[in-house]
Amino acid sequence: YKIAVLPGDGIGKEVIEEALKVLSAVSEKYGIEFDIKKYLFGGSAIDEYGTPYPKETEEACLESDAVLLGAVGGPKWDDLDGDKRPEAGLLALRKSLDVYANLRPAILFSSLKSASPLKDELLKDGLDVLVVRELTGGIYFGDRGTEKIDYGYKAYDTEAYTTKEIERIAHIAFKAARNRKKKVTSVDKANILDSSRLWRKVVNEVSKEYPDVDLNHQYVDNCSMQLIKDPSQFDVILTSNMFGDILSDEASQLTGSIGMLPSASLRGDKVGLYEPVHGSAPDIAGTKKANPLATILSVAMMLEYSFDRLDAANDIRKAVNELLEDGYRTSDLGSGIILNTEEMGDMVLKYLK
Amino acid sequence: YKIAVLPGDGIGKEVIEEALKVLSAVSEKYGIEFDIKKYLFGGSAIDEYGTPYPKETEEACLESDAVLLGAVGGPKWDDLDGDKRPEAGLLALRKSLDVYANLRPAILFSSLKSASPLKDELLKDGLDVLVVRELTGGIYFGDRGTEKIDYGYKAYDTEAYTTKEIERIAHIAFKAARNRKKKVTSVDKANILDSSRLWRKVVNEVSKEYPDVDLNHQYVDNCSMQLIKDPSQFDVILTSNMFGDILSDEASQLTGSIGMLPSASLRGDKVGLYEPVHGSAPDIAGTKKANPLATILSVAMMLEYSFDRLDAANDIRKAVNELLEDGYRTSDLGSGIILNTEEMGDMVLKYLK
Ligand SMILES: CC(C)[C@H](C(=O)O)[C@@H](O)C(=O)O
Ligand SMILES: CC(C)[C@H](C(=O)O)[C@@H](O)C(=O)O
Repeated sequence: YKIAVLPGDGIGKEVIEEALKVLSAVSEKYGIEFDIKKYLFGGSAIDEYGTPYPKETEEACLESDAVLLGAVGGPKWDDLDGDKRPEAGLLALRKSLDVYANLRPAILFSSLKSASPLKDELLKDGLDVLVVRELTGGIYFGDRGTEKIDYGYKAYDTEAYTTKEIERIAHIAFKAARNRKKKVTSVDKANILDSSRLWRKVVNEVSKEYPDVDLNHQYVDNCSMQLIKDPSQFDVILTSNMFGDILSDEASQLTGSIGMLPSASLRGDKVGLYEPVHGSAPDIAGTKKANPLATILSVAMMLEYSFDRLDAANDIRKAVNELLEDGYRTSDLGSGIILNTEEMGDMVLKYLK
Repeated sequence: YKIAVLPGDGIGKEVIEEALKVLSAVSEKYGIEFDIKKYLFGGSAIDEYGTPYPKETEEACLESDAVLLGAVGGPKWDDLDGDKRPEAGLLALRKSLDVYANLRPAILFSSLKSASPLKDELLKDGLDVLVVRELTGGIYFGDRGTEKIDYGYKAYDTEAYTTKEIERIAHIAFKAARNRKKKVTSVDKANILDSSRLWRKVVNEVSKEYPDVDLNHQYVDNCSMQLIKDPSQFDVILTSNMFGDILSDEASQLTGSIGMLPSASLRGDKVGLYEPVHGSAPDIAGTKKANPLATILSVAMMLEYSFDRLDAANDIRKAVNELLEDGYRTSDLGSGIILNTEEMGDMVLKYLK
């Protein structure tokens, strides 16, 4: 299997190292061969080539079975123009790979329950929400511009969706729900937006093919409340690119352990882009405090979705769970036996054996 | 003072009755005269006139010094076309009054601290965030449409802002911060959206006129996390119509007492639209369970902003605080001496004396 690795910026580089150690341990244990190469991406690529997603990186990604990404961005590149920023590279990467389905599980690890900002009685049997976010459409990729007008400027962005774009992401959500609690909550703003009204109509159509899965609809403002009020009502949340950006971060924060959360971005075949939910955290880069577990769990998602190796994926998940049970923590996870980035990576290896 | 009262639908009608009792008590106590008339609006207006914001209602609102609104909407009108729904009336009302500044305080009443879904240690000295949401621009009012394409449809909505629209709402936020903790957090998605980049630039410009107020910027996804992670970092949140819709509901829910939260929508002069943050709650309409305090506190905002009577406004706030301290509750507020809608209205009158 060919894997393009994009360490990116900040702590991205640090957590990727630990994830690669885990990949090589899996390779050994299961006899799976990985062809792994690293490429510049994000700010690091801007520094070297003046662009966040250089041709060489793009070609390598397009030829790979999976892409593993650390994190991008930092204050150094914040003042660049929109199309030259690290984030523009991320958008171009998602678009060029056509990974339209972003899966973001927000899971409360039972040994980290106390890290949640929510009161215990709200957590009931924990929290296990999968946000399925459309990733290659909507206002992120719509027509935009800024024009001079009589007084100052007018700037605009376009939220747009087609039937086809909505259908394919809806199928992903319903299929995912089948392997879970069989409930999809589709989130939109259909009381205001035309794009949301189309969204709702198409999701209703697609749902007919999944009579075993329950579907309900929520407005985005209500969903942002319901996530806090009663998170256990959710199984799969299906939503647009922009709303998914906001709601998946909110859901992540409810676990209190954003340093633990992986993500997968898929295009329906086996190809996928895997990355931690957290960012490049320039403030702690270089301090060895970064938590590598989100990236390591992203490797588990890669094994499951791109390589069909649920056995190896669950092996990693089990190792992470066990070391948490035994009290090992990085400093973002609260008190326990505190490890630095490298030590946490090594600990996963130890539990994997 | 001329006040147009729009009870609306569902519990809107019930809570408005209690708010009117309070207005008349204030009128007596302070010798202020109000000229109060009720008009049909929302679903009730659709039933009568086939439109949510009839001409007669509009004319009355435009001639008034303030508009007091209950709540609109319900399942009965959910299947109507976009432009015939109760929500369309709400948008038309906001636009016709030109009330571009929506102020939504999310306050944790000290006697209701336990109602917050957040753990005690996160609440520190409570929670007191004012969301200043742009209300007459953005994607709510931009160009939209649905067109037939080769396969199915394409639907779009436009998020657009002008320098002027951003300037005027920014001034409102900075001025509000001056009377508070002197901190504005402007929320956008400037790493992606052109409209957000203009937003950020203009807010930075306006901030120069308020050197005594601190300004910081957050991306909307980050803000949705920060609100949960560390709500006490916020004083005034300044944001667009769409992001404000989501974030103000999230902030409200953090108080655990959405039945307590008022809002004001202003246009810079004294004219304003006042309404509770909660909706028409069709599920509890008719059960006498509705909490009238959000609407009563909206009357307090009306007295403060439209009639310059901070004394009377604070009198109402004090009455509400005291009765809460004494243990009186509507059923949404948890345990205590439980009152129904009407009894709670009467209790406010009693404490006002
Ligand atoms: C960095 C940014 C462009 C990106 C997004 O908005 O998609 C990030 O917030 C994410 O959610 O992956
Ligand atoms: C009812 C709806 C149109 C409205 C909005 O989105 O503005 C409501 O959610 C609000 O926040 O007042």
